[in-house]
Amino acid sequence: MGGIQARMEAVLARLLPSAGIAPARLHAAMRYATLEGGKRVRPLLAFAAGELTQADPARLEIAAAAVEMIHAYSLVHDDLPCMDDDVLRRGKPTVHVEYDEATALLVGDALQALAFELLVAHRLADDAEAQLEMVHLLAAACGSRGMAGGQAIDLEATGRPLDLAELEFMHIHKTGALIRAAVRIGAACGTPLAAAAREGLDHYAKCIGLAFQVVDDVLDAQASTATLGKTAGKDAAQGKATYVTVLGAAAAREFAEALRVEAKQALSKISASAAASACGARTDRLAALADFIVLRKF
Amino acid sequence: MGGIQARMEAVLARLLPSAGIAPARLHAAMRYATLEGGKRVRPLLAFAAGELTQADPARLEIAAAAVEMIHAYSLVHDDLPCMDDDVLRRGKPTVHVEYDEATALLVGDALQALAFELLVAHRLADDAEAQLEMVHLLAAACGSRGMAGGQAIDLEATGRPLDLAELEFMHIHKTGALIRAAVRIGAACGTPLAAAAREGLDHYAKCIGLAFQVVDDVLDAQASTATLGKTAGKDAAQGKATYVTVLGAAAAREFAEALRVEAKQALSKISASAAASACGARTDRLAALADFIVLRKF
Repeated sequence: MGGIQARMEAVLARLLPSAGIAPARLHAAMRYATLEGGKRVRPLLAFAAGELTQADPARLEIAAAAVEMIHAYSLVHDDLPCMDDDVLRRGKPTVHVEYDEATALLVGDALQALAFELLVAHRLADDAEAQLEMVHLLAAACGSRGMAGGQAIDLEATGRPLDLAELEFMHIHKTGALIRAAVRIGAACGTPLAAAAREGLDHYAKCIGLAFQVVDDVLDAQASTATLGKTAGKDAAQGKATYVTVLGAAAAREFAEALRVEAKQALSKISASAAASACGARTDRLAALADFIVLRKF
Repeated sequence: MGGIQARMEAVLARLLPSAGIAPARLHAAMRYATLEGGKRVRPLLAFAAGELTQADPARLEIAAAAVEMIHAYSLVHDDLPCMDDDVLRRGKPTVHVEYDEATALLVGDALQALAFELLVAHRLADDAEAQLEMVHLLAAACGSRGMAGGQAIDLEATGRPLDLAELEFMHIHKTGALIRAAVRIGAACGTPLAAAAREGLDHYAKCIGLAFQVVDDVLDAQASTATLGKTAGKDAAQGKATYVTVLGAAAAREFAEALRVEAKQALSKISASAAASACGARTDRLAALADFIVLRKF
């Protein structure tokens, strides 16, 4: 896992425009927003899914970088004063604090464009149709019926109580969609999966996408700012509904655990399917990530 | 021209998510930002370039909508308080005034994603490789070395004098890149052009992209807010370098006129080239648009 994280750091550093190229301040801020930070959960998932389909790591690193740039852009825009108004991210001042609001806005805009550019500027699938489908997956995952839509639902919901169904609807969009896309795009870099295996993988991705957010909510309520590298306790301070406010901390942890079990069951079905069994147990990394996502402390 | 504008209004209305779909407020704001406004210069250029390559209008309307959504997103973000802080656009309150800043931010983010989704969700070129190249053109045109980069250069330059070369560098990125992409993507919907014709078309696009901005600067300095549908005289008020401040109004008009002539000369070369001459004079619309862009009063 550490190997892929280190590899991704180098890949992102290579794929982001140099701070020596005009516009220099924008490029420096794009690098600041993306490099040296984060758990790289989405790239790890893309690599793990690519292991299942025997994808070329040279393809996976580009696909993973594209997804991570979308994630980085979303954090920069989320932290802006008109959104969460946060000053700390990954243990550093947020982009609009370190630079300025206008630059942070453009950093997010340009990172989104760069993500799509990466997905088409390199050969990432055996045929071009499959690669168009990868772009489609990413675009849908970050649009108004994906991540950006989840943010909008979050805005509308702030300050009023949500029930569990509304909370889940929000998070399926806000964080789940991009996590699911990371898994599907990683898998798409390799040999196409049979329909049953593809459905199993997608079910895994949905479970861990939701589990990721449940655990995030628990950590936000219980961990310290120093551990998280971002402001802790923000949700409560902003009157936001979370899995902890709706379910309570203990039930939220149990829910995350149930999702972890369900995700791993989905993987078992993939391993058991005829197509995959011939190729050995290549769901190990996906299983390990389900554990990591639910059992993490930061 | 009016026919294409009316057609684009219907196409955009169809392709934008309905305001009845959740998140409803975001979708309503995306429609507010995109519909009922603008000259639709980029769609007109895409259609005109597609006429040259005998492109199917059903493809052109999708490609043109994608480019127009990028343009609409850029206006919404430009108008935000941290950027130009403008309250009027296309004769209506800007999105952050009509809705709120957070919604305006998400409108731009989601429109960008939707533009890319449109370019891959429909068959727009005879082969998938060519379609990947269309996505590449759009992504490069709106990223840090295109439109977003031009915005960043604009930010860095505000309040200090620019020379003509710096001003041109800024505008080639800020407005020129997307106009050029509109022309190239429109042409790519049809029969591939020979290299010489493609270069001629690109030269035309560069000339009219720059001319568009020169005329914008002249109009900003000379026309009224009512005529423009956006706040007039903003450039001077913000201490921004423009073609009027650098060259003076008369020389700026002459420069735009010279670019119009150069653009039309580039078209003549396309018409004269063997490949195109067999198919008649299908640069008429492109020529008419060069006139429209330079001679317009709003």
